[in-house]
Amino acid sequence: MSTTIASSKTFRAIDVIRKKRDAIELSKEEIEGLVSAYTNGEIPDYQVSAWLMAVVLRGMTRPETAALTDAMLRSGEVLDLSDLPARKVDKHSTGGVGDKTSLVLAPLVAAADIAVPMISGRGLGHTGGTLDKLEAIPGFNVNLPVSEFRRLLEVCGCAMIGQTAEIAPADRKLYALRDVTGTVESPYLICASIMSKKLAEGIDALVLDVKTGSGAFMKNEKDAAFLAELMVETGERMGKQVVALITDMDQPLGNMIGNALEVVEVIEVLKGGGPEDLKELCFELSGWMLHLGHATKTVDEGKKRSAEIIASGAALEKFRRMIELQGGDARVIDDTGRLPRARQTMQVVSTKPGYISSMQCEQIGTACVILGGGRECKEDSVDPAVGIVLHKKVGDRVNVGEAIATIHYNDESRGERARNLISQSCQIGDAAPEPRLLIHRVIRKP
Amino acid sequence: MSTTIASSKTFRAIDVIRKKRDAIELSKEEIEGLVSAYTNGEIPDYQVSAWLMAVVLRGMTRPETAALTDAMLRSGEVLDLSDLPARKVDKHSTGGVGDKTSLVLAPLVAAADIAVPMISGRGLGHTGGTLDKLEAIPGFNVNLPVSEFRRLLEVCGCAMIGQTAEIAPADRKLYALRDVTGTVESPYLICASIMSKKLAEGIDALVLDVKTGSGAFMKNEKDAAFLAELMVETGERMGKQVVALITDMDQPLGNMIGNALEVVEVIEVLKGGGPEDLKELCFELSGWMLHLGHATKTVDEGKKRSAEIIASGAALEKFRRMIELQGGDARVIDDTGRLPRARQTMQVVSTKPGYISSMQCEQIGTACVILGGGRECKEDSVDPAVGIVLHKKVGDRVNVGEAIATIHYNDESRGERARNLISQSCQIGDAAPEPRLLIHRVIRKP
Repeated sequence: MSTTIASSKTFRAIDVIRKKRDAIELSKEEIEGLVSAYTNGEIPDYQVSAWLMAVVLRGMTRPETAALTDAMLRSGEVLDLSDLPARKVDKHSTGGVGDKTSLVLAPLVAAADIAVPMISGRGLGHTGGTLDKLEAIPGFNVNLPVSEFRRLLEVCGCAMIGQTAEIAPADRKLYALRDVTGTVESPYLICASIMSKKLAEGIDALVLDVKTGSGAFMKNEKDAAFLAELMVETGERMGKQVVALITDMDQPLGNMIGNALEVVEVIEVLKGGGPEDLKELCFELSGWMLHLGHATKTVDEGKKRSAEIIASGAALEKFRRMIELQGGDARVIDDTGRLPRARQTMQVVSTKPGYISSMQCEQIGTACVILGGGRECKEDSVDPAVGIVLHKKVGDRVNVGEAIATIHYNDESRGERARNLISQSCQIGDAAPEPRLLIHRVIRKP
Repeated sequence: MSTTIASSKTFRAIDVIRKKRDAIELSKEEIEGLVSAYTNGEIPDYQVSAWLMAVVLRGMTRPETAALTDAMLRSGEVLDLSDLPARKVDKHSTGGVGDKTSLVLAPLVAAADIAVPMISGRGLGHTGGTLDKLEAIPGFNVNLPVSEFRRLLEVCGCAMIGQTAEIAPADRKLYALRDVTGTVESPYLICASIMSKKLAEGIDALVLDVKTGSGAFMKNEKDAAFLAELMVETGERMGKQVVALITDMDQPLGNMIGNALEVVEVIEVLKGGGPEDLKELCFELSGWMLHLGHATKTVDEGKKRSAEIIASGAALEKFRRMIELQGGDARVIDDTGRLPRARQTMQVVSTKPGYISSMQCEQIGTACVILGGGRECKEDSVDPAVGIVLHKKVGDRVNVGEAIATIHYNDESRGERARNLISQSCQIGDAAPEPRLLIHRVIRKP
């Protein structure tokens, strides 16, 4: 409306907002200016939220996405692990139900002499979080300073902590604003949020597990693949080796959902047992991590080596060592009865015979939140003991009255609500459905 | 991302933001909820600015636009002028350069026994404002309380004031936020802003003057017509008679630009003189106002009656009365030397012979701002004395060294900058350009 007659300021948020609104590509300097001014409290929330909405609706180019990731990364400390001789490789998942692979992968890959500096998050909504699972182990401390994190990596080869205040503060501030302004749902913003935190870990390579299906954030594969390609390209632009696997989250991964229960299943896998789907995904991901970590020439060799490491007991011993070093009670490995346990259980039984044709996976995750095992709001506390054990998965036969799941609960009415939700979420049909692949695609730089 | 398990609140801003982001039509209740919660300070700026950006990029349906207008209108006082026997008709322009029609129309239409309750704005950017022009008359008070405004309407039939705190407070708060978040440029938001304020005046009918061309907010006619149709339909949905004229603003209206200078030109027109283009537009608009005010059966009759009222001197006397009632020095009518006058003048002369082929109208408005006659920021004060008198308009012949315009200035360096800008803004060609129509189109309910 007004013609600018004189402007002395070098950075004006309003100009950056207008350009993005009008679908004009922003320069690296403009994006850096916005992120650093916001992180320093120099521009108000209301300008940034308008810009975020413009990004959601106009999108970003690849150079813009990389510039945003870079600016967010450099808003805080970037770990320099170059003095560690091992190659540093991490894995990140976009979140799902029953996904406890991180707890298997960190010790497994570290046992192959690759450093795994894992900085993880908490559960929110229907998805679980690695930190909540670790904290189900009595005494386990995820709140370590960066100096201690670095020491544990040297001593043990793996360490698992929560995000510290020093890492990517711009992401923390931006995410809090996105959460309340309807601007979470943008692949560009999701990419920058994930990649800025992961690349601040000082890693050489990253394996991304991008979930798709009814329990995933990206319900359809097209959206998941788009996000995966964006993250791979952004990481490669920033000089890292990045591979993304699109994996199935149309039903929970493994049989156990809930923090302590998932630790039990992790221990089973590290002992060579555990459910097939969970094992398959763990080996696929560790195969890639070993390959990118230069421990094996191919991914297939990496998968084979992973199985050998499990069979040798080395992964389990690494897990034990990590628990001890992070202050946890490592006796849970030999006696899972030491993990928190819910006071009551009840069963979800089938009311008709047939085959499980589908499980509404998000609803099962929500059932776990209802039990108290997850959070609706960031501020909620979590009950580590509660959860769900699935006795049937998609494609399995059930008879009338047969148990589909067991609910572990501490509150009767919550238990009932969870039972109803799980009951509704399981469809039973006359024939077994066409099986879905667990690993849909691998996306890497051409 | 999160599944809502329980929500006790009836209105959640985040839901309204998400719906608009996803291009889902909002209900009247949702829009009312947002506007009233924001006006009452119950939701923060950062949520509303995200919503505004979603509106800019997603647009609004006609029912949504009417609901927004209605909610903003009802955020404050709505004048009830039903005890005034006269029909109440107002005019609103989207703003331009040299547009002083309001000062002619209020007394002219009031002289036909139609009440004209005119609540106007100030100039911003390259466009002038009615209140600034009125305040060039020594003593003229535009800051009257609503009770006094109503009394003057009874006594005189017309009154011209600024927006009071009681009228459409939601618009004031929203506009301030739009101004700093790149969300001014939306026809839906512009429509709601204009119409909420105008319909709060308690009028029966409204004539809109929607400008198009290089000096207008809407540079092209398609955008101007879209906004005009939106405003007509919104007004009609709310039970008012509304007509919009799309008029030319590709060069300044009349010959004088600057607050006191424009008052001089207004007095010329009210005395039966003045430039042809200004007179033509005044009669076109007053023709419509008289017709919608039920003073004449047709618009043409209204135009004819307008000319008679001017010729009779009744419009000039009404203007004199209005000035007196609002505390101004009405002697300016007989002695324009009593108006503020700049200390210096300089000429803009042609450097080549030919015809004026175009005038970059926004630049001429900006030249007036540079002189001090307008504002770049809302907080700027205005020098009523400075301005520009055009001796040539588009299509006129000029010789080398002949004056195109005279600049009235109080500061030498500002005068020079204005001269350069005006000089650049006038294109001189070998042939007279095809003349543009002053009245492009009339838009009314089918």
